[in-house]
Amino acid sequence: MTGQSAEEGFIAALRAIARDPGARGLTDDAAELSVSASTLVITHDMMVEGVHWLPRQDPADVAWKLVAANLSDLAAKGAQPLALVMGYMLGDAAWNARFVEGLDEAVVRFGVALLGGDTVSTPQGSARSIGITAIGQPQVVPSPSRADAKPGQALWITGTVGGALAGFEALRAGSTDEALTAPFRRPEPHVAAGEALAKHVGAMMDVSDGLLLDATRMAQASGTTIAIDSSAVPVVPALADRRDEAMRWGDDYNLLFTLSEGSTPPVAATRIGTVMAGSDRPLLIDGTPPDSPDKLGYLHRQP
Amino acid sequence: MTGQSAEEGFIAALRAIARDPGARGLTDDAAELSVSASTLVITHDMMVEGVHWLPRQDPADVAWKLVAANLSDLAAKGAQPLALVMGYMLGDAAWNARFVEGLDEAVVRFGVALLGGDTVSTPQGSARSIGITAIGQPQVVPSPSRADAKPGQALWITGTVGGALAGFEALRAGSTDEALTAPFRRPEPHVAAGEALAKHVGAMMDVSDGLLLDATRMAQASGTTIAIDSSAVPVVPALADRRDEAMRWGDDYNLLFTLSEGSTPPVAATRIGTVMAGSDRPLLIDGTPPDSPDKLGYLHRQP
Repeated sequence: MTGQSAEEGFIAALRAIARDPGARGLTDDAAELSVSASTLVITHDMMVEGVHWLPRQDPADVAWKLVAANLSDLAAKGAQPLALVMGYMLGDAAWNARFVEGLDEAVVRFGVALLGGDTVSTPQGSARSIGITAIGQPQVVPSPSRADAKPGQALWITGTVGGALAGFEALRAGSTDEALTAPFRRPEPHVAAGEALAKHVGAMMDVSDGLLLDATRMAQASGTTIAIDSSAVPVVPALADRRDEAMRWGDDYNLLFTLSEGSTPPVAATRIGTVMAGSDRPLLIDGTPPDSPDKLGYLHRQP
Repeated sequence: MTGQSAEEGFIAALRAIARDPGARGLTDDAAELSVSASTLVITHDMMVEGVHWLPRQDPADVAWKLVAANLSDLAAKGAQPLALVMGYMLGDAAWNARFVEGLDEAVVRFGVALLGGDTVSTPQGSARSIGITAIGQPQVVPSPSRADAKPGQALWITGTVGGALAGFEALRAGSTDEALTAPFRRPEPHVAAGEALAKHVGAMMDVSDGLLLDATRMAQASGTTIAIDSSAVPVVPALADRRDEAMRWGDDYNLLFTLSEGSTPPVAATRIGTVMAGSDRPLLIDGTPPDSPDKLGYLHRQP
């Protein structure tokens, strides 16, 4: 279903947005990336049709979200985004064209260079996948790890929780209210916050799969117990009555981090808990382990 | 078809081969990469089931070839491989396990660090894809381009042509002769040759899609005409009578490069032609444009 012309059209469109000289017009075997640091941060996220997006979603939103998810991982390490490379399974010409529009919006918005990648054909009837590698320069080396939460530290979060869930539900219900659906469709990675926080934090990670799941991961990586005060979690007003659900949803791309007790973060953030000595319970919500411990977050969801 | 246990097993196996401290045990949002150069070379190759490999192929060979294809792109830019990140659509547990074995063989063989990536589930019945990003440090900056062939230069190639075709045909015929099938299953990127050549060459690229197709690309990128003496092309003995076919096959991962007339390359290589002023014919074989100009090489093939 994907012929040479779809591929040629797609690459021509990509070429127009691969403005960095290091991209070499997407005509060479590889790209060049200039760096001014001796340590880089690198991450890769992959999204699959039918798993991370459905065919009826706007391809521009798919592109944006894939970039945003990658840059959120860089943000969690306090890294300034430098460059992207992409592996792309071709869709039809209209889908490809709209994808490139969203990709262009994202690379311009976040100031990151598309340097290259690979396009491949898609066997008929197959779900497509798209992967992006993002490279950034960290503000601090070693960059913050999710394993460095220490007992006695305070737990903080940037932004609000639940906006993506509210947007997802609105989109599923057919809403065309762009402001309402934007948190799900067009998440904003907290890049500037991550860079500002890097030298202050203990542990830091992004909340992509749900606050309770990701906080559990931080606790387990650090060998601690994390205690969250659910009433302190900054849930969006629309989900005030569904606080527990909001804490189990992801896609808001907050930064979750720890600070020494008594410290104040250099960016807007909310204290939501405390790190305690490790126990057999990595997570406490209002003093007790969460209900449904196998459903603390979601890895894959569909609108 | 791919449950949590397949993913957990796969990630545990990957963790065992992600030995570089920068990989952070594959437990963090992103990996760290230490570099000693201010310019890096970056490339991404993606392979798709049913397009680049078939289910009955040994998954270890799929892994090897994907790494080799990426490192060949680095070799073409004279870059020393540093690191890989991977996006992986999960298969069944046995396939995943065997893939990791081949991946481990490749990263050990080529001295490159597996730093991280992403694993995603595969919708039932869907072809799977796997993408790898490779990052390297070039010997020379700017690294050799395929656009720098100049009229009067000589055209050279490393290695031999046709070994992969012979191996492909043997494999398709059911051969278990590992030495015969190895050039197709386990190609060796010419990394050391690329590093040694970088400061001497005009243009350089790898031959992944067929000598005639890739030479045409070099000519077009450089605005030149490339004239190849077919009798000089180092075709493997098994294909001595099928020289034209061998020149239209890829997967041998030779380096194709130009040198000033009279210069001798610092590595084993064969002179196969001359760069001429640009014309409306990018490629001449023994003085005339090649037959079947739309079949100069293959982008996708199946064993």
